Amino acid sequence: MPQFIDRHTLDFLLFDVLNVENILGKGRYEDHEVESISSVMDLAQKIAENDLWTHAEKSDVEEPYLDGDQVKIVPEAIAGLRVMRDAGFFAAHCDYELGGMQLPVVVTHACNGMLKGANIGTQSYMGLTRSAANALNAHASDDIKQRYMMPMLEGRFFGTMCLSEPDVGSSLADIRTQAIPQDDGNYSIVGNKMWISGGDHEAAENIVHLVLARTPDASPGVKGLSLFAVPKFKVKDDGSLGDTNGVVVAGVNHKMGYRGTSNCLLSFGEKEPAIGQLVGELGRGLFAMFLMMNEARISVGIGAAMLANVAYRIAVDYAKERKQGRPLADPDPMKSPVPIIEHPDVRRMLLKQKAFSEGAIALCLYAGMLVDYETLAGDKEERQHYSDLLDVLTPVVKAWPTEFGLEANKLAIQVLGGYGYARDFPVERLYRDNRLNSIHEGTNGIQALDLLGRKLVMNDGRGLTALAKEIRNSIDELRGEAKVQSYSDTLLFLLKKLEVRAQETSSLLAQGERVAALANASPYLNAFGHMVIGWLWLQQAVQALKALNSLEEGDEASFMRGKVSACRYFFEYELPEAEVWLQVSTNSPDVLVNLSEADF
Amino acid sequence: MPQFIDRHTLDFLLFDVLNVENILGKGRYEDHEVESISSVMDLAQKIAENDLWTHAEKSDVEEPYLDGDQVKIVPEAIAGLRVMRDAGFFAAHCDYELGGMQLPVVVTHACNGMLKGANIGTQSYMGLTRSAANALNAHASDDIKQRYMMPMLEGRFFGTMCLSEPDVGSSLADIRTQAIPQDDGNYSIVGNKMWISGGDHEAAENIVHLVLARTPDASPGVKGLSLFAVPKFKVKDDGSLGDTNGVVVAGVNHKMGYRGTSNCLLSFGEKEPAIGQLVGELGRGLFAMFLMMNEARISVGIGAAMLANVAYRIAVDYAKERKQGRPLADPDPMKSPVPIIEHPDVRRMLLKQKAFSEGAIALCLYAGMLVDYETLAGDKEERQHYSDLLDVLTPVVKAWPTEFGLEANKLAIQVLGGYGYARDFPVERLYRDNRLNSIHEGTNGIQALDLLGRKLVMNDGRGLTALAKEIRNSIDELRGEAKVQSYSDTLLFLLKKLEVRAQETSSLLAQGERVAALANASPYLNAFGHMVIGWLWLQQAVQALKALNSLEEGDEASFMRGKVSACRYFFEYELPEAEVWLQVSTNSPDVLVNLSEADF
Repeated sequence: MPQFIDRHTLDFLLFDVLNVENILGKGRYEDHEVESISSVMDLAQKIAENDLWTHAEKSDVEEPYLDGDQVKIVPEAIAGLRVMRDAGFFAAHCDYELGGMQLPVVVTHACNGMLKGANIGTQSYMGLTRSAANALNAHASDDIKQRYMMPMLEGRFFGTMCLSEPDVGSSLADIRTQAIPQDDGNYSIVGNKMWISGGDHEAAENIVHLVLARTPDASPGVKGLSLFAVPKFKVKDDGSLGDTNGVVVAGVNHKMGYRGTSNCLLSFGEKEPAIGQLVGELGRGLFAMFLMMNEARISVGIGAAMLANVAYRIAVDYAKERKQGRPLADPDPMKSPVPIIEHPDVRRMLLKQKAFSEGAIALCLYAGMLVDYETLAGDKEERQHYSDLLDVLTPVVKAWPTEFGLEANKLAIQVLGGYGYARDFPVERLYRDNRLNSIHEGTNGIQALDLLGRKLVMNDGRGLTALAKEIRNSIDELRGEAKVQSYSDTLLFLLKKLEVRAQETSSLLAQGERVAALANASPYLNAFGHMVIGWLWLQQAVQALKALNSLEEGDEASFMRGKVSACRYFFEYELPEAEVWLQVSTNSPDVLVNLSEADF
Repeated sequence: MPQFIDRHTLDFLLFDVLNVENILGKGRYEDHEVESISSVMDLAQKIAENDLWTHAEKSDVEEPYLDGDQVKIVPEAIAGLRVMRDAGFFAAHCDYELGGMQLPVVVTHACNGMLKGANIGTQSYMGLTRSAANALNAHASDDIKQRYMMPMLEGRFFGTMCLSEPDVGSSLADIRTQAIPQDDGNYSIVGNKMWISGGDHEAAENIVHLVLARTPDASPGVKGLSLFAVPKFKVKDDGSLGDTNGVVVAGVNHKMGYRGTSNCLLSFGEKEPAIGQLVGELGRGLFAMFLMMNEARISVGIGAAMLANVAYRIAVDYAKERKQGRPLADPDPMKSPVPIIEHPDVRRMLLKQKAFSEGAIALCLYAGMLVDYETLAGDKEERQHYSDLLDVLTPVVKAWPTEFGLEANKLAIQVLGGYGYARDFPVERLYRDNRLNSIHEGTNGIQALDLLGRKLVMNDGRGLTALAKEIRNSIDELRGEAKVQSYSDTLLFLLKKLEVRAQETSSLLAQGERVAALANASPYLNAFGHMVIGWLWLQQAVQALKALNSLEEGDEASFMRGKVSACRYFFEYELPEAEVWLQVSTNSPDVLVNLSEADF
C-alpha cells in the first residue's frame, strides 16, 4: 500500500495554492527554502510508510492493556515513536534554542498529517507531548521548562492533557480535582481524571501530566482552575528520575477505535501524594491550557482529514481493480464486467470522499499558514488580523473535517462493499478511528457554540469581518476564470447570508435571547464550514486550471483535472446543502425546546 | 436496560396509525383479533429482552470461529434460537397447514423488529431460515418441501441464501458456480460462495443452502441462473440425516459488526460432491430468489430501523441522567449542572434520532400492511394496487432506514460522548452492527437504480401513480388539522417534483439516455424516501393530535406530544434537505463521468 499518503496533494496545497514560499526565507523561517521543507516532508512520509502504517492494524487488534499497574502497548508503537524522536519530530516546530528546526507550522501540520494518516494511534503520543510542551513553553517557570519541557521536546518524556473527570467532560467549570498547597511551594493533587489519552505506557522514560485542578480557596467555575505539571516519576534537580509520584492508573478504557492510543482513568494522590508544580498563575489554568486546546483542536482536524483521505485512496485503488457489473450506458451481460470506478454512483461516492477529505486537508493547512503569517507579521495590526482569522476558523477546523471526514470514511466502506465491512481491509478501522474525532477536544456541538456564540460575535464581529475580507479579495482575483464564475457568485451569496445570520445572532445575544441565538449553532457551523471549504476548492481549481493551460497530457495534468472535478463536484452536489442548513439555523428553537423530557 | 424496546411506538403504529384492525378477523386473518396479536407481541418482546439482548455483547466479543471444519457460535445464541423455535416464531407467518399461526405480515415485522433490535446477530439465523423456507414454499417441489422446508419451519433446519461469490457481489449476472446434472435428476454443485450469513454453525440439525448456479448449457447473464437446495447433511427419504454433503467452510469472515451471525466462504463440491436439487424451473433461479430477496430487503430495513431506535432510547436515558453544563439560557457557573437533555443541541440530536428511527419503523410496518392488504384483496385490481405499492417501496424500505438509521446510531454515540465511544456502552456496537445494512442484500446504490430505473418507470409508472394517489387521498383527510396544514402543502409540492423527475427519467430512458437518467439515482432515492417518511410522520402527528384532544396529562399525553414534536422536527429540520437532493438529482452527470480513472 505505498500510495496511501497523497503527497502530491500536500505539495500542491503548500506550494501552488497556499504559496508557502511567501514565508520561507523570512524572519523565523529565514533558513528555510523549498528544498529543506521538502526534505522534512520526505522524512515524515518515509516514517509514516515504513514505521507507522506497518503496525496500525496490530495496534488495533492488540490494544493497550493494564499489566499490574503499568499499561502495555505493542513494541512496534514504541519503536515507531523512537524513530520519530530520533528524526527530531518532537521538537521540529520549536526554536533552535529549544533544539528545534523552526519549521513553519503549516509544514508541521503537513508532516503530522502524514504520520496521523498512517497511524493516528501511535502519532498521538507525540502530538500530545508536543502540545503539552508548547503550553509549558508559553506559561511555565524556567525550572519546569528545564525539568520537564526539554526532555519532552527531546522525546524522552511524554505529556498528557488531564481535563476531563468521570463526571466532567465538556463542562470544565465543574472540575473537582484539588490542588493543596505544600510548604515547599509545590501542590498535592487529589482527584480522578478520565479519558486521558496516553495516560500511561512504557514508550517514554517519564510522563508529565498537565492537570487542571482547583486550589482549596479558589472561586467556583473556570476562573478557579489552575494548571499543574504532575510527573509519573519525580525528577531530581539534575534531571535524573526519582521515586514514583502518586499517579495511579485506575483503569484503561476500551474504545471502538483509535485503540493504539492508551486511554486511562488516572487517580491522583489516592494512596501516595501526587506532587505537582504550578504552571503559570493561580486561577489562570484554563488560559494556560487554551493554547494547548487550540493546538489540539487543529490537530484533531488534521487527523480526521487524513484518516478520511487515506481511506479514500484505498477506495479509489479498489474501485479501479474490482470488476463488477456492466456500464450503465450499455448493460449488455454478454460483455465483460467493468471496473466499478466506471459506475457513476461509485464515482459520486469517490468524488464526495475526495472533495471532503482533500478539502479538509486544505482547511487545516490554511489554518497552519495563518499561524505562520501571524508569527511573521510586521506590525500589531497585521498580527491581529491573522490571529482573528485563526480564532474564527479554529472551531471550523476541529468540527468540519471530523464531521465530513467521517462521512468520507463511511463511503470508503461502501465502495468496498462486503470487503469494506470485513476487518481484512483497513477502511473499517479508519472509520472506527475517525469516529472519535467529533467527540474529543470539545464535541462538535461545543465547537458550534464557540463559533456562533463567541468567535463570530466577539470584538464586534472583527474575526468574521477579517475572513469575509480575505474571501472577497481572493474571489475578486479568482473570478477572472470564466469556468468558475458562477461558483464565485454562489459563494459570495452564501457568505452574505452567513454574515447576516451572524449579525442577527449578535443582536439576539445582546438582547439576552441566548436560546434563540444559539440553539441551531450546529447546522450553522456546517453551513459556514461548507462555505469556507468551497472557497478553498475554488482557489485550488483556479490554480489547477492555470496549470492545465501549460501542461502536456500525463500524470500531472490528470492530477490537476482531478482537482477541478472535485471542485465542480463540491459546488454542484454538496454546497447546495449549506443553503438548507443555514435556513434551518434560523428556525425557531421552539421545536427543540417545547417538549418536556418525558416526551422524548 | 428494560426499556430499550419501544413497544409503545409499535402499538401506536399498528393500532392507531396503520389500523391493523382493518385486516384482523378477515380472510387469512380470520382467527386474529387485537388480543391475540398483542399476546404474540408480548411473547416476542419477552424473548427479545430475556433471551436475545442478554448475550448481544457476548456474541460481539466472542465472534464465530472455525474449529476444524465446523463454525462455533456462543451457546447463548443457540439457546436463544431454541427459545424462538419453541415459541413458534420460525413458522409464525405461515399457514396453519404448515404449522404456522397465519400471523399478519405487519405483525411478523413488528415481532422481528423487537428480536432484531435486541440482537440482530442471533435473530438473523431465524430470519434467513424463514426467507429460504418461503422461497421453497413458493417454488419447490413437494419432495423438497417435505424434506427441507418443513424442518426449517420447525426450526430444526436452518437456511441460507448463497448468491455472492468472491468476485461477484452486486452483479449476479456473473455468477460462475456450476450445477452439473446427475443421472438421478439431482445436480452436482461446484463453486465458491462468499459472504454467506449463517453459512455454518451448530445451532441447527442441518443447514439448507439455497444456491444460485448455472447449468453447463445455460445462457449467460441472469437468465442462465437456476436455484438449488443444497443441504449440509443429506436428508434421507424418512427425514433422517444421512452423510455429509460436499459443502465445506473455506473461511470465516471477520466483520466490523453484526458479528453474532457467522459469515462464511463456502466451497461446494471441491473434494466431495455437493449434491443439490433444483428449486423451480431451470433458468428461473433469479425469479425464485426474488421473493426471498425482497423479503430480505424489507427485513434489512426493519433491522436497521430497530438498531437505530434501540440506540436512540439508550441515548435518551443517558441524556436524562447525565448532568453536564448549565442551561443555555442562563449559564451561571454558580448553579448546579443540568441533565444534558436540557441542551438544545442535544435535543436536536435526540429528535433527529427519534424522527429517523421511528419514521423508519413506520415505513417498514407500512410495507408489511401492504403485503397483508394484497393477501386480503377482493379482486385482481385491488391486489395489483397493493403489489404495485410494495414494488415501489421495497428499495426505499431497504435503503432509507439503513442510510438514516445509521445516522441516528452515529448521533447516539455523540450524545454519550466519550462513553458512547467506549465499548462499555452498547451504542458503539449498535453503530457497527448497523453499518452492514446499507451494504448487504443489494447495496443502497443498487436500490436507487432499482427505484428510479425500474420501479418508478415500469408499467408506465403505475406504481408511482398508485403511491401518489394514496398520499394525495390521505393528505386530503389530514389537512383538516390546522397544525399540520403547511406540512401537507410542503409534502404535496415535493411529491409533484418527484413525479416530474420520474417522468423525465422515463423519457430519458426511452431515448436510451441511461447515464443522464440514472447517474444521480442515489440522491433521488434519498429525496423520495424523505417524502414518504414525511407523509408517514404526518399521519402519526394527526393521530397524536387527535388523541391529545381527549387525553389527560400523563405518560400517554407525553408520548403523543413526542410524536407531534418528532413530526415537526422532521418537517422543519430534515425535509428541507430533500429539496436539495432532488435538485442535485437533476444535475448533469458530466461532473461524475467527465474525468478519467487516473484523475481520481
